[in-house]
Amino acid sequence: MAPKEVYVGVIGAGGVGKCFLSQLESLSKRHATNASPPKISLVFISRSTKTLYSEKYTALPFENLSTKLADSTQKHLSLTEAIGFLSAAPGKAILVDNTSSQDIADQYPQVLSKGISIVTPSKKAFSGSYKLWQDIFSAAAASGAIVSHESSVGAGLPVISTLNDLVNTGDEVTKIEGVFSGTMSFLFNSFAPLEGSGGKWSAEVTKAKELGYTEPDPRDDLNGLDVARKLTILARLAGLPIESPTSFPVQSLIPKELESVASGDEFLQKLPQFDSQMEETKAAAEKEGKVVRFVGSIDVAKKEVKVGLEKFDRSHPIAALKGSDNIISFYTKRYGANPLIIQGAGAGGEVTAMGVTSGVIHILERLS
Amino acid sequence: MAPKEVYVGVIGAGGVGKCFLSQLESLSKRHATNASPPKISLVFISRSTKTLYSEKYTALPFENLSTKLADSTQKHLSLTEAIGFLSAAPGKAILVDNTSSQDIADQYPQVLSKGISIVTPSKKAFSGSYKLWQDIFSAAAASGAIVSHESSVGAGLPVISTLNDLVNTGDEVTKIEGVFSGTMSFLFNSFAPLEGSGGKWSAEVTKAKELGYTEPDPRDDLNGLDVARKLTILARLAGLPIESPTSFPVQSLIPKELESVASGDEFLQKLPQFDSQMEETKAAAEKEGKVVRFVGSIDVAKKEVKVGLEKFDRSHPIAALKGSDNIISFYTKRYGANPLIIQGAGAGGEVTAMGVTSGVIHILERLS
Repeated sequence: MAPKEVYVGVIGAGGVGKCFLSQLESLSKRHATNASPPKISLVFISRSTKTLYSEKYTALPFENLSTKLADSTQKHLSLTEAIGFLSAAPGKAILVDNTSSQDIADQYPQVLSKGISIVTPSKKAFSGSYKLWQDIFSAAAASGAIVSHESSVGAGLPVISTLNDLVNTGDEVTKIEGVFSGTMSFLFNSFAPLEGSGGKWSAEVTKAKELGYTEPDPRDDLNGLDVARKLTILARLAGLPIESPTSFPVQSLIPKELESVASGDEFLQKLPQFDSQMEETKAAAEKEGKVVRFVGSIDVAKKEVKVGLEKFDRSHPIAALKGSDNIISFYTKRYGANPLIIQGAGAGGEVTAMGVTSGVIHILERLS
Repeated sequence: MAPKEVYVGVIGAGGVGKCFLSQLESLSKRHATNASPPKISLVFISRSTKTLYSEKYTALPFENLSTKLADSTQKHLSLTEAIGFLSAAPGKAILVDNTSSQDIADQYPQVLSKGISIVTPSKKAFSGSYKLWQDIFSAAAASGAIVSHESSVGAGLPVISTLNDLVNTGDEVTKIEGVFSGTMSFLFNSFAPLEGSGGKWSAEVTKAKELGYTEPDPRDDLNGLDVARKLTILARLAGLPIESPTSFPVQSLIPKELESVASGDEFLQKLPQFDSQMEETKAAAEKEGKVVRFVGSIDVAKKEVKVGLEKFDRSHPIAALKGSDNIISFYTKRYGANPLIIQGAGAGGEVTAMGVTSGVIHILERLS
């Protein structure tokens, strides 16, 4: 029997969180209009030290939600209290975690063991220790709660769901390769474009930062850890028991000498001194008629995961990528020589929130 | 509560059907080994005039299934009788239709109204009359049965699911464009390749037929109807009430003079007389620095659907396609200038069956 009502709690109301709340509002209105069960009731939202919740589990209205949250005088609930609140709801509950907090991620097994499903764009829970990964999926299996993290790789692009479908239908995934970072995509599509000669490396990094395409300190993109986390998730889904995102080779693009400078600004000031290194890399690729790109790859048979610079023929789909798009190629036994390719924007509030909203929809379908 | 057992009936055991049965066998073994409910019980299989079924709804063993079906002395069940058999099962049932029969497709509303879910790679039900489309989805909504037809466009590529996710999360799909036919992809990638000059049109068609890439009569590919059917399905999912695959412009590549010749062989014999037409088309594109491709497109805002030859810049992803791959680009409000692109093999037994098997898996999850 379809449940009449599903209770949703949301943590985080920043960039992705705001977009998600707007998508959830439309979704819950459509459900109400179509009289198609279940009714989606937002009963809990929190952000840093503020919490807004509905003591009697009646739906919070979406109007002026941010303001009401900021002005809330209700007691701020700890995560443990929030779990208690959701697990006492008079029906199935979903926790949407729109933060990138490791502390919250560490508590997913506890959330799931109470039968509360989880939807999140965060990579933290799935790219941390392998033990946390195992605890999460065994807690879900035991309680019947569902975990959805589509946006943890490639934002709204159907990457996780496609890999799961390949594996679950019995295909043999041999290799996964791609550009997994919008920032790295933008940097290399500008620095070593297919047409024209591109700018100096330090100038492209500075431009990317000005356009808001990098983290506040660009080194947090250039160290490769973001890509390593995504590769960890995909490798685990493909069946490799990867211990952590630091347990395989990851090439950092931060010059050794600049690793410990105090600030991102100082880093950018000094980066031009090291432009010749990247110029040499670019020239070496050009000599072979190729272009250089920052990619991640998983060789499933050899159990090898790596992240770093690679050279690609100019006709390769990875070379032809545009803007800050991601591209992910799945090589499998069934697909043969030409991989299954998924390509498009892999970052941004709306597309990331889309992966979260579709996760909520799929869970609603499964709870129906 | 998770049901203990889901009953599966299968119609069709040809190319896709055989691959599907092998994938279903692996799946049901995995479910049995993991003790993860529900148990999948194949209780019915039929092919042309032969039926094999389990009167007491105990699972048919997969070993030598084809032989046992061919040797079956059980009464052949009509579709109506098969529906009766499945709806009397002691639990939820799924009908897998691996035929491309219009007669069977016409009865989907009846199947669904009995609460039996449907999984099929067939385009017939979804690209026929708009009334049939409406009847199918309203029967499903009324009974709670589920319809899955992922493989009806792009085989195992996640095309239908991605479009549904875009629409259901509230994105605005503005345009869908792509190469939707493996045959047409192969023909044009050979006839007008990015590198080299390609063969004569008639020679490429003959070669494609010899390689088994065309229908027995190649005119069944060249008339564009296969692509028109796929476009009909996608346009309807995007919200356009397309009446039928013949209610919008579809360019046929069959010369008028050869439309009524008696056989595919005679057609191929006479096709070289018309090579100059296609050569002109190719040359006209080359003059603009472009290549010609056979594509389908849906302009959602203008409500325009069309199928036929188009010219593309050599750097366009559609121009760079390889082999017999499909490519589908979704232009949406959220994705902006660069579309969400899905690319890979869009035909073949194993990948088509994969879309069917993943449909079964998703229904099992929703019935759990």
